[in-house]
Amino acid sequence: MSFNTFGKIFRFTTWGESHGVAIGCVVDGCPPNIPMSEKDIQIDMDRRRPGKSKFTSQRKETDKVEILSGVFQGKTTGTPISLIIYNKDARSRDYETIKNKFRPGHADYTYLMKYGIRDYRGGGRQSARETAARVAAGAIARITLNKLIGKKFKVVGAVIQLGIIGCNKNNWNEKIIRKNPFFCPDKKSLKLWEKYLLSIRKAGSSCGAIIELRASGIPAGLGAPIYSKLDADLANALMSINAVKGVNIGAGIGAAFLSGEENSDEIKKIGSKIKFKSNNSGGILGGISSGQEIIASFSVKPTSSILSSRETIDKKGRNTKISVKGRHDPCVGIRAVPIGEAMMMCVLLDHFLLNRAQCN
Amino acid sequence: MSFNTFGKIFRFTTWGESHGVAIGCVVDGCPPNIPMSEKDIQIDMDRRRPGKSKFTSQRKETDKVEILSGVFQGKTTGTPISLIIYNKDARSRDYETIKNKFRPGHADYTYLMKYGIRDYRGGGRQSARETAARVAAGAIARITLNKLIGKKFKVVGAVIQLGIIGCNKNNWNEKIIRKNPFFCPDKKSLKLWEKYLLSIRKAGSSCGAIIELRASGIPAGLGAPIYSKLDADLANALMSINAVKGVNIGAGIGAAFLSGEENSDEIKKIGSKIKFKSNNSGGILGGISSGQEIIASFSVKPTSSILSSRETIDKKGRNTKISVKGRHDPCVGIRAVPIGEAMMMCVLLDHFLLNRAQCN
Amino acid sequence: MSFNTFGKIFRFTTWGESHGVAIGCVVDGCPPNIPMSEKDIQIDMDRRRPGKSKFTSQRKETDKVEILSGVFQGKTTGTPISLIIYNKDARSRDYETIKNKFRPGHADYTYLMKYGIRDYRGGGRQSARETAARVAAGAIARITLNKLIGKKFKVVGAVIQLGIIGCNKNNWNEKIIRKNPFFCPDKKSLKLWEKYLLSIRKAGSSCGAIIELRASGIPAGLGAPIYSKLDADLANALMSINAVKGVNIGAGIGAAFLSGEENSDEIKKIGSKIKFKSNNSGGILGGISSGQEIIASFSVKPTSSILSSRETIDKKGRNTKISVKGRHDPCVGIRAVPIGEAMMMCVLLDHFLLNRAQCN
Amino acid sequence: MSFNTFGKIFRFTTWGESHGVAIGCVVDGCPPNIPMSEKDIQIDMDRRRPGKSKFTSQRKETDKVEILSGVFQGKTTGTPISLIIYNKDARSRDYETIKNKFRPGHADYTYLMKYGIRDYRGGGRQSARETAARVAAGAIARITLNKLIGKKFKVVGAVIQLGIIGCNKNNWNEKIIRKNPFFCPDKKSLKLWEKYLLSIRKAGSSCGAIIELRASGIPAGLGAPIYSKLDADLANALMSINAVKGVNIGAGIGAAFLSGEENSDEIKKIGSKIKFKSNNSGGILGGISSGQEIIASFSVKPTSSILSSRETIDKKGRNTKISVKGRHDPCVGIRAVPIGEAMMMCVLLDHFLLNRAQCN
Repeated sequence: MSFNTFGKIFRFTTWGESHGVAIGCVVDGCPPNIPMSEKDIQIDMDRRRPGKSKFTSQRKETDKVEILSGVFQGKTTGTPISLIIYNKDARSRDYETIKNKFRPGHADYTYLMKYGIRDYRGGGRQSARETAARVAAGAIARITLNKLIGKKFKVVGAVIQLGIIGCNKNNWNEKIIRKNPFFCPDKKSLKLWEKYLLSIRKAGSSCGAIIELRASGIPAGLGAPIYSKLDADLANALMSINAVKGVNIGAGIGAAFLSGEENSDEIKKIGSKIKFKSNNSGGILGGISSGQEIIASFSVKPTSSILSSRETIDKKGRNTKISVKGRHDPCVGIRAVPIGEAMMMCVLLDHFLLNRAQCN
Repeated sequence: MSFNTFGKIFRFTTWGESHGVAIGCVVDGCPPNIPMSEKDIQIDMDRRRPGKSKFTSQRKETDKVEILSGVFQGKTTGTPISLIIYNKDARSRDYETIKNKFRPGHADYTYLMKYGIRDYRGGGRQSARETAARVAAGAIARITLNKLIGKKFKVVGAVIQLGIIGCNKNNWNEKIIRKNPFFCPDKKSLKLWEKYLLSIRKAGSSCGAIIELRASGIPAGLGAPIYSKLDADLANALMSINAVKGVNIGAGIGAAFLSGEENSDEIKKIGSKIKFKSNNSGGILGGISSGQEIIASFSVKPTSSILSSRETIDKKGRNTKISVKGRHDPCVGIRAVPIGEAMMMCVLLDHFLLNRAQCN
Repeated sequence: MSFNTFGKIFRFTTWGESHGVAIGCVVDGCPPNIPMSEKDIQIDMDRRRPGKSKFTSQRKETDKVEILSGVFQGKTTGTPISLIIYNKDARSRDYETIKNKFRPGHADYTYLMKYGIRDYRGGGRQSARETAARVAAGAIARITLNKLIGKKFKVVGAVIQLGIIGCNKNNWNEKIIRKNPFFCPDKKSLKLWEKYLLSIRKAGSSCGAIIELRASGIPAGLGAPIYSKLDADLANALMSINAVKGVNIGAGIGAAFLSGEENSDEIKKIGSKIKFKSNNSGGILGGISSGQEIIASFSVKPTSSILSSRETIDKKGRNTKISVKGRHDPCVGIRAVPIGEAMMMCVLLDHFLLNRAQCN
Repeated sequence: MSFNTFGKIFRFTTWGESHGVAIGCVVDGCPPNIPMSEKDIQIDMDRRRPGKSKFTSQRKETDKVEILSGVFQGKTTGTPISLIIYNKDARSRDYETIKNKFRPGHADYTYLMKYGIRDYRGGGRQSARETAARVAAGAIARITLNKLIGKKFKVVGAVIQLGIIGCNKNNWNEKIIRKNPFFCPDKKSLKLWEKYLLSIRKAGSSCGAIIELRASGIPAGLGAPIYSKLDADLANALMSINAVKGVNIGAGIGAAFLSGEENSDEIKKIGSKIKFKSNNSGGILGGISSGQEIIASFSVKPTSSILSSRETIDKKGRNTKISVKGRHDPCVGIRAVPIGEAMMMCVLLDHFLLNRAQCN
């Protein structure tokens, strides 16, 4: 029920503002006796961290995570794991522009409407900085699932559409994803994407993206019918990420365009294994995992902070204009890859534990 | 947390199987002193009910809703409202086909994997029959919001894409929506849709659909940052509907293809009113309503029960084939319109009450 | 979070008023494949039912429970179990007295203050009739725990204090409990209790009671530290029963009077078994079960509906008097025994499932 | 649902172990625009802090609270308030005794049984050190309620029974409570209590206590029927405090000994005010506040860590003996006063907000 907590049994609560002392996260419900270290969690933090290439924000956030509780002698104890990430590069620059004007596409206006008060420094709580805490929680979920399910468990995300430029998903290659700054899965698209993004950055503009997530090694039976469906929980998780506007499971929005025959994922036993002939369902039927790869994708809108002048109003309701300078990502969608992975891993662990409770 | 309950403060729990005695719903958290009657709820029930045209299932469900508690002398008392809908037309036909085989695209396989037991009669709990209970809860939400916000509050849904055939959203006309069996908003598309759907029905095939929902009269400030975002809760609500595979808020998946300039919903004060020059955000910024119309859409996959023979396995794991006869909708997406409206209304009332709690 | 739902994973939602059509309960989260029948549940219903002896209310409620969903071919399916109990003996007598006056000790006044509306027929939702639904849920918990833990699992309750008359707990005898109308565990107290209660009934007065619950066969490790402690959840469960004013775990309120030496439950290994030399803890340490018998007790205030004239006010705020006639129990505490047992069994099953989720 | 979170709308999550870097608390759901400062919160922290008199533990914990988020320019923003308290005086003394033996009355044994791992340093998560975080959350609730309800709102706690020595509650005097190290409300008992406690301390023994809490200024209508009753939530809150074994509301356990006539709190209108002639209900009827003073009490068992040698077993299951030295409180009940107040204030704020949501 709470506003800043995610999950049912494996739950995490995040806190902190963009320009406060620190941000953090309390992870509750992690099983005991899971080997856990700051170093292991840091691996995922480093994937999200900005300032790594010229295609993302040039802010120098080290995003170093510290464990404050819940781990004893290198293992989880079953008690809450408190994580803290100090804010290092919160420049005390001039926020006068943001302070008195509402940036279009940002939550400046709605926060003030709701709360009657707003921490305007760097977006306050609405800042995407909060997602660092999610990535930390996701790392804990990853480590735990690897222990509980085994090494076959894996969640991999990639950008499959960069603004108006797509890529060939048939060329999906995990090694390529790890090596390029766009999380692009298709080697052949790299050059074009680089050119495209540089041109956008140069123009002070921005573009959106579509990210696809693939989870393998997930047993059949996770999820629940009706209001804790695995797909409904994934939709909730992914739509909660800043700037996300659409979520697909399997064929997703495209399912509307298929015929019953095309959409039907036929089943076949080959040897001792049950195989589906296609995966339009995204590995989920009736809200429950089928044992197939779980596939979800989500769209991220273009970065709202752009150089071009836009019409808006100020706090007093007067018409004015705004142009947002700063160290912004030309495409926030790129950095959404590890965040999407993190949210998916948290949902999967949560349902793994729920299933353990409900079914023998 | 529970598997069959939806909502935070305004919560409803549904129960019942397709071929049991009855299905029902317990609505908790509805404010007191709201005028409420079976007749008022029945209006929405009748919109979902099958058997009304040749384009939907020919099952004769009367779907008559009865109030068992929580209403006294025509008003809600603040205590739980229990609703029951008896199953009338559950034919005791032969289920041998379904009983021993897994229908592709259905949850037969995953239910058995999860629970080790399955009520195969008409799909049991996985049946879309459960959505009748949601529509009843949605009707209570509608009546309550009309009382709390006023008559300006309205949620209207329409089918905007029928399989491969779209329509012109600029011709959106509520009167037209109410008068045609497809919930199509565009008068000009009716003829074509009718032909298309008849041909699909004749072929024993099926098609998908995209439904758009529009809520007006919603004050700014509903929703909450981070993990109770209005859009994330809507995504969860809509993805929980049977056969839904994708959810968009505002520009949705399409937001990925826009530039920062195009996507930015500029703000302008005109007279004493704050106006947004576009609505790519779907009326939600940072998870909080902006006062604009709230717009969400979702895709429904084609009906899985089709006449064509499909490959599958039986309970013993042997390869076999299946062809599903019966009184199925050629496009389940059509009947998803009132269900989507119901879920949206429940989310909106829930956040209206939550906001009352958290902010003065 | 919701107002009429109890539990975390094994959850039940009750609904209904004293004089409505029916009352009922939806049980969610019950594991699948548990043999379940109306007959089995009815056993517990019959223990709570009034009208069985001259010492309880003479209302003729048959309290026949019907299963509407969630059970297929004699086994639970993992989907919600909906139970209904029709109200049979709701006499349409004159409620004018209750309607316009506030009965001292009842919730008439507070319901109206809160909701601004009140279903005055037989107490409406505040009626102890709601507890029939709890007993049904408790029966499902009992049957499930017997299946999951085995026959060694058992919860037994008894009245250990009837108004000002106690009994000798050392004579605790389960056979005796089952055979007398007071749930008294001590054969030697029966005569005295009978005389005492008859005199109270004759005088139109009422008395309170203390009920003790003992659960055996509970493995060590159930419960959780801090805010889901087994004892805290039991306190919540028992205090939620109508008319309960105090809850003890183990030594309870009496623990305040013990010295550290007396209170310390020393531990000893005898053979291969770990034994505690006493059980002041009530089988719970740090919120987690120790493997000892779990012992809780609770006090029930005297029935508020008495014949003696009491001062009160009416709805218009005028001073007046009230004397409540009717078929009331002289000691509602007696019928609280199966209700307390039911609540304890629900808490234990809930924690059994939670523990399965959190710990391997 | 989670293990380390308390509350429904006003929720706090605590984390941290006795001998970790720090402990802390994330408070979610606090309304915006409430003036809030570390200094204000510290007032309550200082009341709980040990080492203030010779009657409590001589540990030197400064318990300085720091706000990490959620407060901007001296006011709450509606976003999560993260609080941290660094552990200062966690002596790295020898824990060998505790490490390998189970202290009777402590949760050493049950934690290991549940989790298969235990942070033995100073009790780890089971340490009463966690209660410092509750007191911080309670301070936020106090400040918020004072702003929302006004200065008439007040919660005052006192020790009314110190081991076997009681006091005269008729002499209840708040000034006295604030000035003596026992939170004793009765000036006449101070001398005797001092002597008694010194003798216990000298003997290396310990005693229990009963604490009474009184809340005034609470409007009628807080709470909810059935499973979110104000009294049931208070029982849960108080029973969750370390070492608490019993909870009373109003007459509490004593209600069992009253007759219906004695227990009935008659109602009278005097001038324009509604007055109850007694308060056996503790200000709560049917789970809803009546506008009377809300009165709850709870018993705290004697400190388990005592000097006397007790029988126990070690981790390998061998019989052994234990005698716990250290800087322990002879009566932990004394320091439970501000903790009980904190929990009560959190419950009251939670229900105040809930009521705002549900009723107009």
